[in-house]
Amino acid sequence: MKIGVLGTGMVGQTIGSKLIELGHEVKLGARNADNEKASAWSDKAGSRASHGTFADAAAFGELLFHCAVGAAALEVLAAAGDANLSNKVLVDVSNPLDYSKGMPPTLLVTNDDSLGERIQRAHPALRVVKTLNTVNCSVMVNAGRVAGGDHTMFLCGNDASAKASVRELLTGGFGWKDVIDLGDITNARATEALLPIWVRLWGVLKTGDFNFKVMR
Amino acid sequence: MKIGVLGTGMVGQTIGSKLIELGHEVKLGARNADNEKASAWSDKAGSRASHGTFADAAAFGELLFHCAVGAAALEVLAAAGDANLSNKVLVDVSNPLDYSKGMPPTLLVTNDDSLGERIQRAHPALRVVKTLNTVNCSVMVNAGRVAGGDHTMFLCGNDASAKASVRELLTGGFGWKDVIDLGDITNARATEALLPIWVRLWGVLKTGDFNFKVMR
Repeated sequence: MKIGVLGTGMVGQTIGSKLIELGHEVKLGARNADNEKASAWSDKAGSRASHGTFADAAAFGELLFHCAVGAAALEVLAAAGDANLSNKVLVDVSNPLDYSKGMPPTLLVTNDDSLGERIQRAHPALRVVKTLNTVNCSVMVNAGRVAGGDHTMFLCGNDASAKASVRELLTGGFGWKDVIDLGDITNARATEALLPIWVRLWGVLKTGDFNFKVMR
Repeated sequence: MKIGVLGTGMVGQTIGSKLIELGHEVKLGARNADNEKASAWSDKAGSRASHGTFADAAAFGELLFHCAVGAAALEVLAAAGDANLSNKVLVDVSNPLDYSKGMPPTLLVTNDDSLGERIQRAHPALRVVKTLNTVNCSVMVNAGRVAGGDHTMFLCGNDASAKASVRELLTGGFGWKDVIDLGDITNARATEALLPIWVRLWGVLKTGDFNFKVMR
């Protein structure tokens, strides 16, 4: 499948590389077509890897990943362009982290709204699925990295078929065994609100290789 | 030990009954000394159970539990009186839930402050330990009710010896096996922020008998 990955940081590169490994074609999107990180990544990632602008990556992908920092999400998607987003599934793995007041970060939006909802409202024809934002990027694409994959991923979104196809990717190549569908995109409020405890546990456990399992 | 439990709802009664079962003396505190629920509870709970005002319960207890609804917390503790609170350990199990905008509830305070911190700031001589607020009251006092107790409880607070004595109660009579100390009371922001996903999971799982386990 052709997949567009918006964002060239560690998260975008890790997801892009995993998708290449799974046999997909991936175009990494950046603000500028000559982004150095994206260029270096696509040189290394082989013949199915390419890069371009956010609009190039969005036009290329049948499926899209939003991997830019949360604070930039709306700007990134505006640059991608509605014509390139319409009716596509967008997996939003980002978090609205605000580091401006020091560590640990607070959230730019929370409680009665979320970044997932803001993206969905700004692009009504996009089928936003919020997931993977509750673990670090190494665990996102390889659930087995923690406790043999014995832990939980949440997803939410307004479009049932979009969620079904994302679930397939999660339980397939990404190795997730327990995926809980929380419901519509307003549930992004709940999964983004896991970040405050995530960053604190990261400090206590001294590793990002952990995750929650819902025991029931 | 003599323990004062502030709050006469299901949470206060469940914790009170468990503490009685563990051999402690418990006074349940209410707004008024003739509270019907508190009276019915202490009649049923046996000779080590009693009830009175918030101030009576606070004066009685060497250890205190705050089990009133979060929205009433500061008022309840003001009624308990600083003279009765000074230098005591208070286990705050409450959450700042706001049902005024419908379901699911939002939080009255979150992100850059928390109810745990507000209680600590209002009563500097109180040794506040925030814990147990991330599970329902049946699980609070009997961790084994879910997955044989194989899941995680968080605690935080500014006073190390207060946390040590609360940890002892959790891992003793309440049956908790994995208790993670997140640090000072500002970490209540993180554990109170688990409520949004808790209430949504309760809706999806159709039971309150679940909890998170931190897999690492």
